[in-house]
Amino acid sequence: MVGLGPGSADLLSPRAMKALREARVVVGYKTYIEIIRDLIRDKKVISTGMTREVERCAAAIDQAAAGMDVAFVSSGDPGVYGMAGLVLEMLHKDGLEGKIDVEIIPGITSATASAAKLGAPLMHDFAVISLSDLLTPWEVIEKRLEAAAQGDFVVVMYNPASHKRVDHIKRAREIMKGHKSGSTPVGIVRNADREDESIIVTDLDSMLDFSIDMLSTVIIGSSGTRKLGKFMVTPRGYSI
Amino acid sequence: MVGLGPGSADLLSPRAMKALREARVVVGYKTYIEIIRDLIRDKKVISTGMTREVERCAAAIDQAAAGMDVAFVSSGDPGVYGMAGLVLEMLHKDGLEGKIDVEIIPGITSATASAAKLGAPLMHDFAVISLSDLLTPWEVIEKRLEAAAQGDFVVVMYNPASHKRVDHIKRAREIMKGHKSGSTPVGIVRNADREDESIIVTDLDSMLDFSIDMLSTVIIGSSGTRKLGKFMVTPRGYSI
Repeated sequence: MVGLGPGSADLLSPRAMKALREARVVVGYKTYIEIIRDLIRDKKVISTGMTREVERCAAAIDQAAAGMDVAFVSSGDPGVYGMAGLVLEMLHKDGLEGKIDVEIIPGITSATASAAKLGAPLMHDFAVISLSDLLTPWEVIEKRLEAAAQGDFVVVMYNPASHKRVDHIKRAREIMKGHKSGSTPVGIVRNADREDESIIVTDLDSMLDFSIDMLSTVIIGSSGTRKLGKFMVTPRGYSI
Repeated sequence: MVGLGPGSADLLSPRAMKALREARVVVGYKTYIEIIRDLIRDKKVISTGMTREVERCAAAIDQAAAGMDVAFVSSGDPGVYGMAGLVLEMLHKDGLEGKIDVEIIPGITSATASAAKLGAPLMHDFAVISLSDLLTPWEVIEKRLEAAAQGDFVVVMYNPASHKRVDHIKRAREIMKGHKSGSTPVGIVRNADREDESIIVTDLDSMLDFSIDMLSTVIIGSSGTRKLGKFMVTPRGYSI
């Protein structure tokens, strides 16, 4: 299970690079396979589209069960809304646990890659919430948004919107506004460390004036978060 | 601001490596400087001990203001309980913003490095909370623990204990037990990807039977988290 990081080659770890080099088979979502196309020219590649996650994991397990070294790639970190969990669940269900060696190679996940672009919004306690209700009932997501806002966490939103889900981010903002001031800094990062990267620092009142889509990560400040020049910073509390 | 990741050379990104190579001055907490000692033999090194954070940032800013290329290193990610925020605050206060170029190079933070060792506990929404009350009132920490438990987040605890603070993790567990079952899986990872790495999967009832110190990261499951063989997994919700 190989974490590719945000997508830029210079954020791919040597450990991930070695796994790609040594693998005979590379499995992944087709967009991620494109990112590393040049590194895997001589490999067998199995790529499938969105929502084919179970199929993709089954293919990776089949190849490994046949004795192949498989690199199953995820963008970011395979352990954060990635495929590591599903692979472990399927191995367990199939009684293949312990028979197939699994190594999870972490990567830089979007929360911290995006934070680095915005300044330092994650210097203090934060919550990471996906707004996708494909697999999670929307009520559970609302409950978590509510709890995170109430606890004055910095809130990182993954999958904030898609073509079909345009209202979730509006509702999420409404929940945040129930607990946070309208001037709370908000960062919107799209395609961090890829081509067409875009970085916006705005606030809770104005955030919906900007385009937010499935390639965006949205970071909403805590009560301590400040806009310092072009940066968004959540002070840890040092006296200076 | 250079993120070193967990400490293993093969998780140091090429971007971080390049920054270290190009720097004339390397600044950091002495333990982190030790980790990269071999990479920076020809550099000027400024290292200070724990709780000297402001001093360290001031030294880095002074060097940069004098025209030096400075690599200010943090373990993990400089933007997660690291030094990125303090540097940006001090630059802002000193009116040096825009006069000194700052690049934040993200690294693999302990939450995801530890998760990779445990299996896949962070496949669903999670909260990251530091139990250190050096800079944060303990009431704020308790409020966040309470909110995170109430929201059924997976909870990642940084700085769970130190020589002086042995009771915080007990109190944190008590708060978790107010909302989570005693059989909730708990992972304790110490020194992920360093020598003397230790990985424990236990549960909320038994977690205090194990040693937890300032080098540990503790991950408490959500209501969905399961122990699958030796792994701790929070299913995302796929039907298999």
